[in-house]
Amino acid sequence: MATTNRQWVLKHRPEGEISAGDLDFIETPLRPLAEGEVLIRMVYLSLDPTNRIWMSDMDQYLPPVQIGEVMRGGGIGVIEESRSANLKVGDIVNAGLGGWQDYAISHESMVNPVPRMPGVPLTAYMSVLGMTGLTAYFGMTDIGAPKPGETVVVSAAAGAVGSIAGQVARLQGARVIGIAGGAAKCAWLKDELGFDGVIDYKAENVGEALGRLCPNGIDVNFENVGGPIMNAVIARMNNFSRMPLCGLISGYNLSGLTPGPEDFGRVLMKRILIKGFIIIDYLHRAAEGFTALGGWVAEGKLKWKDHPVDGLENAAEAVKRLFSGDHDGKLMIRVSPEP
Amino acid sequence: MATTNRQWVLKHRPEGEISAGDLDFIETPLRPLAEGEVLIRMVYLSLDPTNRIWMSDMDQYLPPVQIGEVMRGGGIGVIEESRSANLKVGDIVNAGLGGWQDYAISHESMVNPVPRMPGVPLTAYMSVLGMTGLTAYFGMTDIGAPKPGETVVVSAAAGAVGSIAGQVARLQGARVIGIAGGAAKCAWLKDELGFDGVIDYKAENVGEALGRLCPNGIDVNFENVGGPIMNAVIARMNNFSRMPLCGLISGYNLSGLTPGPEDFGRVLMKRILIKGFIIIDYLHRAAEGFTALGGWVAEGKLKWKDHPVDGLENAAEAVKRLFSGDHDGKLMIRVSPEP
Repeated sequence: MATTNRQWVLKHRPEGEISAGDLDFIETPLRPLAEGEVLIRMVYLSLDPTNRIWMSDMDQYLPPVQIGEVMRGGGIGVIEESRSANLKVGDIVNAGLGGWQDYAISHESMVNPVPRMPGVPLTAYMSVLGMTGLTAYFGMTDIGAPKPGETVVVSAAAGAVGSIAGQVARLQGARVIGIAGGAAKCAWLKDELGFDGVIDYKAENVGEALGRLCPNGIDVNFENVGGPIMNAVIARMNNFSRMPLCGLISGYNLSGLTPGPEDFGRVLMKRILIKGFIIIDYLHRAAEGFTALGGWVAEGKLKWKDHPVDGLENAAEAVKRLFSGDHDGKLMIRVSPEP
Repeated sequence: MATTNRQWVLKHRPEGEISAGDLDFIETPLRPLAEGEVLIRMVYLSLDPTNRIWMSDMDQYLPPVQIGEVMRGGGIGVIEESRSANLKVGDIVNAGLGGWQDYAISHESMVNPVPRMPGVPLTAYMSVLGMTGLTAYFGMTDIGAPKPGETVVVSAAAGAVGSIAGQVARLQGARVIGIAGGAAKCAWLKDELGFDGVIDYKAENVGEALGRLCPNGIDVNFENVGGPIMNAVIARMNNFSRMPLCGLISGYNLSGLTPGPEDFGRVLMKRILIKGFIIIDYLHRAAEGFTALGGWVAEGKLKWKDHPVDGLENAAEAVKRLFSGDHDGKLMIRVSPEP
């Protein structure tokens, strides 16, 4: 049995980009389990833009990670020791917010077995069948609610959320335009995922491209980034259009506030709906989301990419890739081998 | 029978505030009626902040008024001549967008009799029982949807829309804080209309006052103004709060765009809903609104003030009062005497 845990703890809050000194990599002894608890060896640790928010002390949807605390993170692991009647050694489980560490000790009430589907790799439960897939599903279907033939724009479209959000919109019968950075990502969206149009924001004028690709305007803006790209989309949003506000990644590394639409008058004139949402608000409907996403996965109607980076020791460096775009699919740490 | 009409026509689009030269006051001959038409002598002409939008060429919810066209405006009048089987001379009618003129010629299909209630003055059909009342009712009940005990903030609270919106929220059981300019308006809101708290933005720091008056945060922001007051309210909006976006009057006289929230991250983190709306979207539900508002008026549960200014010739000067706040209740022109 393991007796030592490696953990990333928050040393100080980042200013701007996350830097090496913001997190400390420490070793701590593992305490014995109490009744009802399990010891989870982390297998995959999710890296997400929201990690940067948790590291800050801004007013947010969960308490900020405190200085000295283990960095928060979602993940999947395998039970190595159990004092629960319901969970046994070897079970592969969703470890909830197990944290950036080799081992998590959790009460059985916080741990759920991963509902494996045949032929689906475990990493998929970190992406298309995990939190990012559910985020895409609920944001698109519940807030965006595209009707057949409507035009949907997704920013950060090659990201773990955006790529699923766009495909979900296509499955609702919408025309989907994706905005992503780089020719390879754009080719993947168009050729593999079937997006109706793509815009490489690193190579094209986004506004001009939107004008060309959205001749009937935009009915849904699945917003992940904020800033100038958001403004270019809003400038073409139609009457009664909807904007699920999923993320504002362009602002997460900035010290000041992230401003809203530069043309708020258009939100009024076009009667646009803007709704911020966080996946934790939809967890009571998770079964609905899994059923829909799982069905599409089984039918081969959803595609996704996972990008595991080996080694917990690389987490603090790897998380930066979310902001540079230097990753290819859902970014995660492979903390230990799959069982 | 009248043979001459006086009309305000748009001469050029205002830059900044409306100025004397933007509209021309002209005389034109009245043409004969066609079959199905009526000649309406305008009695009350509505002056509204949206007039400024119609005068601009910004992308808006109706076509901009064209240069040389009669200025658009809603109103009530009396039929002086009829070639309609359904409308007779002497009928008091809602003249739709009859325009800034002494007489409007309208097809019977565009004209509805005013459904008078006993003891209610005709001016009320320009305000609490007119478009501004319906705007307040639907924005508050359909988008804001306050629950009993929730905290509602209304900006431009002494205005024709805001004063009704706040009272409607109180009738839903909410705590209502109004933001208005000047001690007299604030006293009216608190002492006469029963607002739970008031903030004089000309004399107080709005953010500090909101902090004091909204110890549990803000659940509904009925937004009429935009700018720093909007930002002060948003900074205190709660999880899952709602923001009916009714107007942005602080920006109507500015040449640039009116920016959205300075802290859009909060819209995401607090899962705020923002929804632009225009009363024309709710006209199919007008009967519902009139029934509710009329019932409250009959029961003495709604109070309002009307501010008629005599003389069509004063319209171009009087409309500016909407932006200076120099009016006391729903601003309108008394074009001709009530029948």
